[in-house]
Amino acid sequence: MVQNGEFAIIDRFFTHETFGAWRSKGVGDDCAIIDTGAGRLSVTCDMMAVGTHFLPSANPEDVGYKALAVNLSDLAASGAVPRAFFLAIGLPERNDAWLSGFTEGMMALAQQAGCALLGGDTTRTAKVGDVHAPITIAITAMGDLPLQMGLTRGGAREGDDVWVSGDVGGAYAALMHRQGQWTLPAEDFPAAALRMDRPEPRNALGTALLSVATACADISDGLSQDLGHILDRSGVAAQIVWDAVPAHHALRHLPRSRQLEAALSGGDDYELIFTAPADKRGLVEQAAISSLTKVTRIGRIVKKEDDSERLVVYTSEGERLRLAANGFDHFA
Amino acid sequence: MVQNGEFAIIDRFFTHETFGAWRSKGVGDDCAIIDTGAGRLSVTCDMMAVGTHFLPSANPEDVGYKALAVNLSDLAASGAVPRAFFLAIGLPERNDAWLSGFTEGMMALAQQAGCALLGGDTTRTAKVGDVHAPITIAITAMGDLPLQMGLTRGGAREGDDVWVSGDVGGAYAALMHRQGQWTLPAEDFPAAALRMDRPEPRNALGTALLSVATACADISDGLSQDLGHILDRSGVAAQIVWDAVPAHHALRHLPRSRQLEAALSGGDDYELIFTAPADKRGLVEQAAISSLTKVTRIGRIVKKEDDSERLVVYTSEGERLRLAANGFDHFA
Repeated sequence: MVQNGEFAIIDRFFTHETFGAWRSKGVGDDCAIIDTGAGRLSVTCDMMAVGTHFLPSANPEDVGYKALAVNLSDLAASGAVPRAFFLAIGLPERNDAWLSGFTEGMMALAQQAGCALLGGDTTRTAKVGDVHAPITIAITAMGDLPLQMGLTRGGAREGDDVWVSGDVGGAYAALMHRQGQWTLPAEDFPAAALRMDRPEPRNALGTALLSVATACADISDGLSQDLGHILDRSGVAAQIVWDAVPAHHALRHLPRSRQLEAALSGGDDYELIFTAPADKRGLVEQAAISSLTKVTRIGRIVKKEDDSERLVVYTSEGERLRLAANGFDHFA
Repeated sequence: MVQNGEFAIIDRFFTHETFGAWRSKGVGDDCAIIDTGAGRLSVTCDMMAVGTHFLPSANPEDVGYKALAVNLSDLAASGAVPRAFFLAIGLPERNDAWLSGFTEGMMALAQQAGCALLGGDTTRTAKVGDVHAPITIAITAMGDLPLQMGLTRGGAREGDDVWVSGDVGGAYAALMHRQGQWTLPAEDFPAAALRMDRPEPRNALGTALLSVATACADISDGLSQDLGHILDRSGVAAQIVWDAVPAHHALRHLPRSRQLEAALSGGDDYELIFTAPADKRGLVEQAAISSLTKVTRIGRIVKKEDDSERLVVYTSEGERLRLAANGFDHFA
């Protein structure tokens, strides 16, 4: 999960020549894909802070669940089967009620995913003046991949279809509702809140796509941003049809500008956005059926022209939409 | 690196039945030793916070160096060759001067150790009122091991020798001096400070001991505590000869009670404490020579009697010393 402004920090301070040791196929991807000699490993590392990634009022079970889920989602984007994770928590004070809820939410998902907690560290963070520092959570999750395989953001080719799993925009709409900026109908809010609090990592789908998809990412920053990473890494452009995008049903009464904002720019859905050759549509649908996960074809990869935008969104009537400061809007 | 009080939290909240997935040979050890099917992996995960593990005034290059060094030291204790690491940093504000120093210290050691940074995450931690939260650093480091091999805390046997690498007590003496509690001679302080700020992970020694040592740990909490973990896990007891313990030379003018406190209870030295059969002394010395690391034989493993203390320290004159509240002292 890569936050805004983070790429600049990573590029400036942490890029370095590889000097022997293990090399990774996936630097700048959701996961590092590592050939250890005998096997191939997919590893991801995320750090989260209460107050930044979680509302301070968030239910500790949801925090525990989601902290692991976002890492499993990164593994899903690489096609790896989750196998083990390591957990580091920085706690300002010992709070057994909070920890108990946190571990309950986390371990239920771990058990369900077959991903074992194999180590970790807890540390006390210093008080700042009289007040406690926020809780920080860092997880490193590991999965395995067949030799020579593993999905990255770098393989999309002209003519490929663009697909997305599940539906998008629900998590963002729930956040806007909780912050009092939008109002969702009372009957729609609970389903949207579930998308924000309990995202389902798409590991079964990711694994099923290993020999089908050409590129894959999970949607943490937003569909357009995460598809944008695929386009950048693959050196291609894309055309998306707005009417085909599977917007969460809680968005249906919102004005279209907000629907676009939530579905295309809102993050935190943890669905997979991926590309696959047009002659493999049957195999993509098979992967969806075998993993019990809905997939929707929303556009196609095109050649990148020097002057054109890399990502263009049309309506099915041919109207072109554009990315405004806080989301997609009518093309001016 | 396991902090005081941390074991209770880990035991209470994070112990669970293993449910398929990968299993670890080393849970409760410095590293998790994982059989991935084709290979064997050693993984360690540490979290550190400025203000808790580092003085707020610490030089950022030293913080970067030491944050990686303590993880490499955990790998050394398992006998693994460091191969890759993942870094998560929680930053209260972007501070390029600090980050630049931090990464310089860290990457110099990474390059020297042949351990590549293959991924990570940076996150902004929320302000608490008007003040910034402390910087938190979480590292997961990975190394590889020959099939079927790997040192843990669990193999010490009656009759084994107890060995320690390098010297001990320097880091703790430097901390006491910096906190104004002790005064080291001006000519001795720099060498002790180096032990605190720039501990040398003993990876070459750890690897050379793979087929020689029966149990191994790194000294993060203190010689007696970390040897104690070996004794607990192995179900044995130990006798140590104080005069044989290689105390750092900066301790030589301190009263004996402080020498004992620093060398036996003071932590942060990141030397290896290990056991090996008495008939393998020649092989231990060979491992020391091949890794250019001093080793000293300081005692032996004995049978654990129900009523006796698991760790007894004698002087060479046969005087028995005992662990007081803040270190070893005369037996009352």
